Amino acid sequence: MDIKRFFEPQSIAVIGASRDPNKVGSAVLKNLIITFRGEIFPINPFVDELQGLKAFKSVASVKKKIDIAVIAVPAEMVLNILKECEKVKIPLAVILSAGFNEIGGDGTKKEEAIKKFLSKAKIRIIGPNCLGIINTDPNFNATFLDPNSKVIKGNASFISQSGALLSAIVDDASTNDIGFSKIISIGNATDISEADIIEAFKTDEKTKVLALYLEGLNNGSDFLKASMEFSREKPLLILKGGKFKSTSGAVSSHTGSMAGDYKAYELAFERAGAISVDNIDDLFNFMRDAAEMVINSNEVIIVTNAGGAGVVTTDHITKIGLKLAKFNDKTLNELAKALPKEANIHNPVDMVGDATPERYRDTLEILVQQNKPIIILFSPQEMSQPLETAKQIFEVHQRHPNVPFLSVFLGGARVEKARRFILERNMPIYQYPNEAVSMIYGLYSYYSHRGRTFKIISKDKAKYKDFKLTSNTFGIDAKNIFDSIGIKSAKGIKLTSEKDLKKASDFVGYPCVLKIESNLISHKEKVGAVIIGIKNDEELKEAFDKLSKSAKEQSISKPVFGLYEDVNKFGENKVEVLVGAHRDPQFGPMIAIGLGGIFANEINDTTFLLSPISDQDIDELKSSKLGDILQQATSQSVFNELISYLLKLDKFMNANKTVKDLDLNPIVLFNDRLFATDFKIFV
Amino acid sequence: MDIKRFFEPQSIAVIGASRDPNKVGSAVLKNLIITFRGEIFPINPFVDELQGLKAFKSVASVKKKIDIAVIAVPAEMVLNILKECEKVKIPLAVILSAGFNEIGGDGTKKEEAIKKFLSKAKIRIIGPNCLGIINTDPNFNATFLDPNSKVIKGNASFISQSGALLSAIVDDASTNDIGFSKIISIGNATDISEADIIEAFKTDEKTKVLALYLEGLNNGSDFLKASMEFSREKPLLILKGGKFKSTSGAVSSHTGSMAGDYKAYELAFERAGAISVDNIDDLFNFMRDAAEMVINSNEVIIVTNAGGAGVVTTDHITKIGLKLAKFNDKTLNELAKALPKEANIHNPVDMVGDATPERYRDTLEILVQQNKPIIILFSPQEMSQPLETAKQIFEVHQRHPNVPFLSVFLGGARVEKARRFILERNMPIYQYPNEAVSMIYGLYSYYSHRGRTFKIISKDKAKYKDFKLTSNTFGIDAKNIFDSIGIKSAKGIKLTSEKDLKKASDFVGYPCVLKIESNLISHKEKVGAVIIGIKNDEELKEAFDKLSKSAKEQSISKPVFGLYEDVNKFGENKVEVLVGAHRDPQFGPMIAIGLGGIFANEINDTTFLLSPISDQDIDELKSSKLGDILQQATSQSVFNELISYLLKLDKFMNANKTVKDLDLNPIVLFNDRLFATDFKIFV
Repeated sequence: MDIKRFFEPQSIAVIGASRDPNKVGSAVLKNLIITFRGEIFPINPFVDELQGLKAFKSVASVKKKIDIAVIAVPAEMVLNILKECEKVKIPLAVILSAGFNEIGGDGTKKEEAIKKFLSKAKIRIIGPNCLGIINTDPNFNATFLDPNSKVIKGNASFISQSGALLSAIVDDASTNDIGFSKIISIGNATDISEADIIEAFKTDEKTKVLALYLEGLNNGSDFLKASMEFSREKPLLILKGGKFKSTSGAVSSHTGSMAGDYKAYELAFERAGAISVDNIDDLFNFMRDAAEMVINSNEVIIVTNAGGAGVVTTDHITKIGLKLAKFNDKTLNELAKALPKEANIHNPVDMVGDATPERYRDTLEILVQQNKPIIILFSPQEMSQPLETAKQIFEVHQRHPNVPFLSVFLGGARVEKARRFILERNMPIYQYPNEAVSMIYGLYSYYSHRGRTFKIISKDKAKYKDFKLTSNTFGIDAKNIFDSIGIKSAKGIKLTSEKDLKKASDFVGYPCVLKIESNLISHKEKVGAVIIGIKNDEELKEAFDKLSKSAKEQSISKPVFGLYEDVNKFGENKVEVLVGAHRDPQFGPMIAIGLGGIFANEINDTTFLLSPISDQDIDELKSSKLGDILQQATSQSVFNELISYLLKLDKFMNANKTVKDLDLNPIVLFNDRLFATDFKIFV
Repeated sequence: MDIKRFFEPQSIAVIGASRDPNKVGSAVLKNLIITFRGEIFPINPFVDELQGLKAFKSVASVKKKIDIAVIAVPAEMVLNILKECEKVKIPLAVILSAGFNEIGGDGTKKEEAIKKFLSKAKIRIIGPNCLGIINTDPNFNATFLDPNSKVIKGNASFISQSGALLSAIVDDASTNDIGFSKIISIGNATDISEADIIEAFKTDEKTKVLALYLEGLNNGSDFLKASMEFSREKPLLILKGGKFKSTSGAVSSHTGSMAGDYKAYELAFERAGAISVDNIDDLFNFMRDAAEMVINSNEVIIVTNAGGAGVVTTDHITKIGLKLAKFNDKTLNELAKALPKEANIHNPVDMVGDATPERYRDTLEILVQQNKPIIILFSPQEMSQPLETAKQIFEVHQRHPNVPFLSVFLGGARVEKARRFILERNMPIYQYPNEAVSMIYGLYSYYSHRGRTFKIISKDKAKYKDFKLTSNTFGIDAKNIFDSIGIKSAKGIKLTSEKDLKKASDFVGYPCVLKIESNLISHKEKVGAVIIGIKNDEELKEAFDKLSKSAKEQSISKPVFGLYEDVNKFGENKVEVLVGAHRDPQFGPMIAIGLGGIFANEINDTTFLLSPISDQDIDELKSSKLGDILQQATSQSVFNELISYLLKLDKFMNANKTVKDLDLNPIVLFNDRLFATDFKIFV
């Protein structure tokens, strides 16, 4: 995608420009007339003039170079119009028309036809079913947003998958002094995708921050690749809608049900180094300020003229996982000299209620030496001078531009002018302390992530076989597959009749465990499909009879049984771990590890790692709480072996594309060994 | 506290009224002149006139009935002034003067002297070190807030422990159209406490909602009692500052360290039925709207003209723990008839982008039949009519006033008039969906809690002995205490020398566990102070020698040992549970239960129950995830016995006031029995 060509047009044609003020083709023409300094060509075969401009019968009749065609004709006409546009060498069409894939059926067919045409054509398209595109420098608004909505010039570009939400965001943004560089309503993204735009904006100098409103994706790996590259250069913000949509079908694997729909997005955003926000107000704050400061410390300084505000801010800092900076003796001495004796010279620094603008200045001059982000709280009290204080804050910042200053002016009308003074100088200013804290947290995460290298682990050089599985596989059959890729499991053997019992028990030894190997039974324990702690031939016979009866009762006509060694014989103090994998339709395999057995259902602490697993992922896992528990529970060599299973499963999932989910639940850890004891593969 | 007398004064004296406009005594007089219709008596011995009013030398020289004395003289003069006020029978003094307990030392002495005087006097005081008090009906502002700050009349009363934060909140509130009934800056609360005011406001008809900004409390149980009674009548909101203050001393018990400082407040707020908010903006929303609607359902209906907004709102609903309401066939049919075919008739109902005011009206008329809270989303799009839509929403609500309508008008300037239209009709209106969701969640929690009865459990009728413990008690000594109150523990015996070994092992049997019983060793396992799985005399001798050497190395001169049965002999599949107790300085004992052993450190899932434990607490525990895990791990009878231990410890903590913390970590659960295996009591 050629940013210069698409966002600095000399001329724009509006195809389907309309006389009816309620029509999309009228609104977009009006917006262009208001904002665009290049040539505008309204195309409408039935009129000669529109909103004061000469109208043309077709793009062919314009006879001049056209840089962008904005298309607002009914869906059934779009393909022909596109062909006309290509003929006169228009490089980009923005298709506002709806009635395509989003309505299914016939609409999908129309979109397929366009796709087919595009595969051989030179023209590129944005949309269909989109609101249009905007640039603020040079200025043009090729959308059918309400012409009364202002779009302020700024540093943030914005890509939205929802046109309706975009109109609200643009309106809200202008009311809140949030500026934009470029806005793209992406619509159905038939041709130009989110990934294309992210890639193009990486080198766009006017885009200092990129914000996305996402609901879904057509191609996860393209998106991930473009995002990772973008965020190495500039902050990438994502507001994801549809995080908690309930999964459509029933999920049979533990791992799949714990992953849900959003987990892969979460992991992908993390790997991409994106800043994930939950609310529109957070999005705005980041859009405005993310390019204004670099935050390399998770230790925060708070300075306030109201103790209570310092207390509330400290709470937010602690809750989100940041820390209060500690001061050394030199700083404390300087603060003690500068501040009255009722003041608190420790962080959060309380300059007390009668703090003058000069006291703010002197205190800040001391605190900037720490080179850490400073949250400057101001509460309007009887002696307070809001505007003068704002001026002093600005001046100190001018002298120390690399120290992040995040001002929070509490209150309403009394501090309005002060807030505006700071805002107009492009310094971060917030109404409530939690906003400043979120900002520091998000930018610290961003900058600390950006510095990291991402190294795929490939110690295990083995090539993995594709088993070409076409049906769900459980028990011994699944165990054999895991055995073959080097995952240690309890001894086990399949049997179908009573006469196999002796041979089987000779092989696995006592004590042993007998199971019905049916994929019909998911919660084995609950329906009596497992008998553990079998100590001798007699008990085994008894168990076999019991399970045979149980199988019959459950209408399993030819039951298959699995006899396994009972790993309890290997000792005490065992911990059960769940290891599994889930294939996300967008982002591919995720490997899971968490507490197993009864804990797997109840404690939602399972960690997911996106394939391919990196050294970073493993380091984080090792130093996580789960890593701590496991390293306390077993020896280092067993822990390392367990970790190696994650890498093996990563490779296995990549080699076996038919596998959707798998569960090894539990893998039982002893101090000196480990065994997988239950095996499920879902296709 | 007599609300009528204190908040509907006929006359107010300002003692320390000053000519200097920078003085507190000048600002408060100015505020009174602006707001108060009764008689004002400035008291200043050095002038005859102040701000146009006749000044008096003293309260005695006024010779008229004075309802409130506002005192703004230096700290050292306050006591004498109070005495003069009492002499002329002024019932209430509001002491603005600072320089008391908050500065320590001399100030504390001055406050003690006032306290002593008050114990025999009839006058009551608010403060000292406070900002003053305000009523809006009848109107008076007896604070030294900036006289430019407006205070709007409303339904919410507000108590603040921070004067500085209060000034910001009042200013912010008036800018955001948030009204107040009464405001009290409580200061040091030497006499009239938070609890007194909460109790008084319970019957104040003009206070429909009460909001508190709290940092700490002088008397937790008074506060809890007053709050519980208040919230049975009206919503009580609490914004707590200082939730995460790090504990001052080192905490030696697991239970204590997990409880932290805030846990007891959290439990107390929950028991009080208060709505706990984290941010000032949430506080404002609840202050404005909590009295406007009753929410009895956790199933929410969403109706929108923008799919994306519906998606984002659904995320917030799911994340916070509410549900989307499901529609029956009748409703679906009606919606299908009323809406265009592109619409989504399932919840969240998407009326699509061209939704007219009439479409909002018709859809709402169908949805109100469900009698569930409705979030009405509006995104300004090209066809949208914000104000007309607001009018239709209002009219539907007029016809169905008991159905909660929470309108969210996204956008900025384009929806400003519509927002104001709804706001002025006292209907809930928000800028972002998460605000509406928080409101429903908070009010649903409030109303579902309010309906509940709270019954102290007292099945265990035994009287508990006060052991009068004066030092930390561990191992066998502590075990004996727990044994005596009926908590089952592993067999164990104390020994000091090698010659006791035979007798001890005869008593506990093999396998057994040998421990050094020293309070110097907190993480026994890590320093080799425990040897488990001892199988015979020989191994026991070896273990004894090893631990004796270890004790010597750690400079424990006369080591005491404990020999315990090794409960591992009782079977497999055990779960380790931590049970403990912690005494909060404000709210008394809290009893803790969570996963024990290696999990206790890492998984912060421990549940705390505030003493006295109620049937409600136990029901919630049983249906919690922890309850599920434990009931899966063991039999019902063992689970019930474990629960009974919580009640025993509750009684024990109440009988033994010297005990600060205790840990039983772990209690080991088998299917048919349980044992406490480690014992610590801290005083």
